[in-house]
Amino acid sequence: MEDAQTTFAEVKEKVMAFAREREWEQFHAPKNLSMALAAEAAELMEHFLWVSSEESRNVSADPAKRAKIAEELADVIIYALEFANATGLDAARSIEAKMAANAQKYPVEKARGRAVKYTEL
Amino acid sequence: MEDAQTTFAEVKEKVMAFAREREWEQFHAPKNLSMALAAEAAELMEHFLWVSSEESRNVSADPAKRAKIAEELADVIIYALEFANATGLDAARSIEAKMAANAQKYPVEKARGRAVKYTEL
Amino acid sequence: MEDAQTTFAEVKEKVMAFAREREWEQFHAPKNLSMALAAEAAELMEHFLWVSSEESRNVSADPAKRAKIAEELADVIIYALEFANATGLDAARSIEAKMAANAQKYPVEKARGRAVKYTEL
Amino acid sequence: MEDAQTTFAEVKEKVMAFAREREWEQFHAPKNLSMALAAEAAELMEHFLWVSSEESRNVSADPAKRAKIAEELADVIIYALEFANATGLDAARSIEAKMAANAQKYPVEKARGRAVKYTEL
Repeated sequence: MEDAQTTFAEVKEKVMAFAREREWEQFHAPKNLSMALAAEAAELMEHFLWVSSEESRNVSADPAKRAKIAEELADVIIYALEFANATGLDAARSIEAKMAANAQKYPVEKARGRAVKYTEL
Repeated sequence: MEDAQTTFAEVKEKVMAFAREREWEQFHAPKNLSMALAAEAAELMEHFLWVSSEESRNVSADPAKRAKIAEELADVIIYALEFANATGLDAARSIEAKMAANAQKYPVEKARGRAVKYTEL
Repeated sequence: MEDAQTTFAEVKEKVMAFAREREWEQFHAPKNLSMALAAEAAELMEHFLWVSSEESRNVSADPAKRAKIAEELADVIIYALEFANATGLDAARSIEAKMAANAQKYPVEKARGRAVKYTEL
Repeated sequence: MEDAQTTFAEVKEKVMAFAREREWEQFHAPKNLSMALAAEAAELMEHFLWVSSEESRNVSADPAKRAKIAEELADVIIYALEFANATGLDAARSIEAKMAANAQKYPVEKARGRAVKYTEL
């Protein structure tokens, strides 16, 4: 699978099949999945605790570290899409709606080069 | 956009364009994005703090709550894909590799109906 | 040390001395400490991903698991107090102020037996 | 209350009384408290998403921001100590044991000035 050809629906199906085969749907309540997702996001973050933001841009230089980070990112997206499965949400549609809202909240002219909350623009 | 037709690459491009237009790439170091991702995952989780796992399955019943949850899920995936952009990772390829590893760690026969770590199977 | 006799100041001093001896203060910027704290909180949470809320009350039954959980809780408080050190905050004073505010937001009569946000009381 | 005089036991009692008065113990299962703790840690972290580690050291300069951060830190410690209440753990004793283990894992000579995991020292 590659990003260029892979749809969200394809991954959602694979993830659901994986859980179903193992009879894990009983554990995959939205509450539990939201916890697992947050836990995996924290594991991804742990790779960057003590480096500066600038240093974190060079993470790709070390192949072993890069492979670990790819695994944590995969875990995050897997749980996010299993959460979508468990709640019947369409991820792409939700993203489209959220990005439209964000475009309203952060108009290009006002937000350019500024990392502040929209309420402070 | 809908899950059935939307590829990861499409969303990655939209997310990157959104940041670039606002000159936000200077803020989008992997360290910072991993924090934003973890923070959004926590916001999603906050909707489920005090309900039981079983109750969390009925979240869809309340449309206002469902809309909020869809927004938080969107934020999580947006930051995950912007993280992929910032690190040059292919999300779908990473997921495929991780799911293959998971299938080894959790063989169907051993893992069926059991929510324990693979080291305890 | 035991809760009955140990003050916040005592633990703050021990934690600061530990970091100072190792010349770790250079890494202990508030940003980094807030990440480490969130990461440790997530590790504590990982012990409860797939059990129900009710089952989680019996965690003490398994001594090995209990010991692990005690370690994670310790890590959380250690980083919280090192964060207080790094920012010059008085933890107890902050807690007192926050509990007074919470008492206003959640009056006993209205909040009794209800796990909803104060804006919905 | 101030750090210099306040014991962990005092705060644990106040936090427990607050919950008991409101009949919230039914919601305060360890699973739920671990989620609330992680969510509050994420809120603390949100104040530092887009600043550099160095910039985060000057957070005290802005009194309004400092007050917000003190509130989030208070929430973290409140939930950590309510978690200790719910699980019957002694926080100070757990911290003492964990710091002794950390001193073994990170000997001063080897760990000085280095922010790497003990397995890499």
